[in-house]
Amino acid sequence: MKTHKLLMPLDMHLHLRDGVMLENVAPLSAYSFSGGLIMPNLVPPIQTLEDVKAYKERIMATIPNDYFEPYMTLFYKNYDKAFLAMAAPHIMAIKLYPAGITTNSEGGVSSFKLDEMRETLEAMSILEIPLCVHGESDGFVMDREAEFMSVYELLAKNFPKLKIIMEHITTKEAVAMLEKYENLYATITVHHLYLTLDDVVGGMMMPHNFCKPIAKRPQDREALLRVALDAHPKVMFGSDSAPHPKDKKESSGCAAGVFSAPIALQLLCEIFDKHNKLDNLQAFVSDNAQSIYKICPEFKEVTLEKRAFEVPQSYANVIPMYAGKTIEWAIQSVE
Amino acid sequence: MKTHKLLMPLDMHLHLRDGVMLENVAPLSAYSFSGGLIMPNLVPPIQTLEDVKAYKERIMATIPNDYFEPYMTLFYKNYDKAFLAMAAPHIMAIKLYPAGITTNSEGGVSSFKLDEMRETLEAMSILEIPLCVHGESDGFVMDREAEFMSVYELLAKNFPKLKIIMEHITTKEAVAMLEKYENLYATITVHHLYLTLDDVVGGMMMPHNFCKPIAKRPQDREALLRVALDAHPKVMFGSDSAPHPKDKKESSGCAAGVFSAPIALQLLCEIFDKHNKLDNLQAFVSDNAQSIYKICPEFKEVTLEKRAFEVPQSYANVIPMYAGKTIEWAIQSVE
Repeated sequence: MKTHKLLMPLDMHLHLRDGVMLENVAPLSAYSFSGGLIMPNLVPPIQTLEDVKAYKERIMATIPNDYFEPYMTLFYKNYDKAFLAMAAPHIMAIKLYPAGITTNSEGGVSSFKLDEMRETLEAMSILEIPLCVHGESDGFVMDREAEFMSVYELLAKNFPKLKIIMEHITTKEAVAMLEKYENLYATITVHHLYLTLDDVVGGMMMPHNFCKPIAKRPQDREALLRVALDAHPKVMFGSDSAPHPKDKKESSGCAAGVFSAPIALQLLCEIFDKHNKLDNLQAFVSDNAQSIYKICPEFKEVTLEKRAFEVPQSYANVIPMYAGKTIEWAIQSVE
Repeated sequence: MKTHKLLMPLDMHLHLRDGVMLENVAPLSAYSFSGGLIMPNLVPPIQTLEDVKAYKERIMATIPNDYFEPYMTLFYKNYDKAFLAMAAPHIMAIKLYPAGITTNSEGGVSSFKLDEMRETLEAMSILEIPLCVHGESDGFVMDREAEFMSVYELLAKNFPKLKIIMEHITTKEAVAMLEKYENLYATITVHHLYLTLDDVVGGMMMPHNFCKPIAKRPQDREALLRVALDAHPKVMFGSDSAPHPKDKKESSGCAAGVFSAPIALQLLCEIFDKHNKLDNLQAFVSDNAQSIYKICPEFKEVTLEKRAFEVPQSYANVIPMYAGKTIEWAIQSVE
């Protein structure tokens, strides 16, 4: 049987939520990943060091038997230098949300005034704290990411020492930005490598494929695939796995988010294998992130095998992407 | 209180379904409309004269107390001349679906081979039976209608005496076609005058705004509004009101269709009033259809008044468009 080993897989964009949901989903990521960048958009958002430490403890409490490093983040606001210097050892990045743009982002940035942001972004540059950005305007849903490129340009130009991560990119415009500014990087989800808008509203309407940013056109998916399959050194895997209870998804007013964490490595193996690019998967799913974030995870080896694997109908009360579908790769063992 | 009278409103694209659903929804259309063009995509589709007559009887049985004319249609296949001559007095139009493109369209046309369609389309031209078309390709969801324009051109050019109705148009490309071929006409729904893709997947995902063709870009909506508000003589109102039970909409794999029949006239008054075009509504909602289809409905007068009207949360087990929302016009009386 064909197998493939991955060392220290990292999920550089992960929603673990809190409470019972945290208890349900954190062990699933901890099983197959060495670490993950933990999103701070709880209610209220993570904005103090006490919040960071307490949330990290709650996460660790759910995974007593697995090695898994939660790389913590703060929810962006205009923090002062002194605070950032104190926070730097405890966080891996700061995540910026435009206000109201996605789940629990109401307290985000409502306009990008550089004068107001300068102290924070300069301190982050000096302290080498990357800025992770949910890059969407408040425009027409298919144009939001492309419209946000001007903000990325503004930030990248004005803060050339700041490492800026364009999170969960979905368009050819964002892919093109990687070549334009040295300090721009990106994460790519597994669902955006598989889905286009056709998989959301092209046949039946599929709430479990609905996320923000929404899956775009086939040409956009191809652009993402190209840099992911080549393991472009500025690109990392980040699942943006975002669990919601079934009743919040299958309802009028369905919440945005695709839950992919427990099937992410299997789907990545499938698509890299299909394109004869399995040799590049290690870089996409770990090595690039290690270089970009300067992290050095402890040893974990995940062995995947090429055999039919039927995605479970649910994990607790969360429906995963591709529930009930058969995919071509499965996890054989984790060491 | 501001009021507005409409004479003999017509809904030139209406799904009444069958069985219990028919009993639930037909009286709602019959209350405020003089007649409607009844879509033939039952399971199995309406393809014989017996089907037409029996379905019409079932419809009439649900509305014993209202005057309402169900203008019957056949589901397109390559019918022969003799059959069409016999059918002509019993039907108002023939509805063509590309195979598999929307609800219950599996038996539709899978390729547009003029040689195979010629006998049918020439007989329809001579017998003055309009051809109603669901105009979508099987391409990317946002491009399907624009891609179908080449089929409309093919049909319009090759059968210049055939009246072709572009059903439920959603794009500026379809609007532009009205000027290009004399024998092309169109219906426009009320939901496509209100919604864009943003109302489907731009905030939360809204299954009750999900339909085929899907709502498009703001510029497309503006193009539709322009010809509707001006009551362009080649354009008619057709609700495409398409009821599904709540559990088929609020689920994984949500069915396509917006249920708007009971609130259509109210919403039309609201939007025509907002644009100071109320004087054109009579033509859009009745007179144009009378001219295009050469029909002469019996007298019905619907008086609407400008007052807050809260859309019901449901009609039987069907959730309407804008459930629970307040709109600015209500039906005062029907005579």
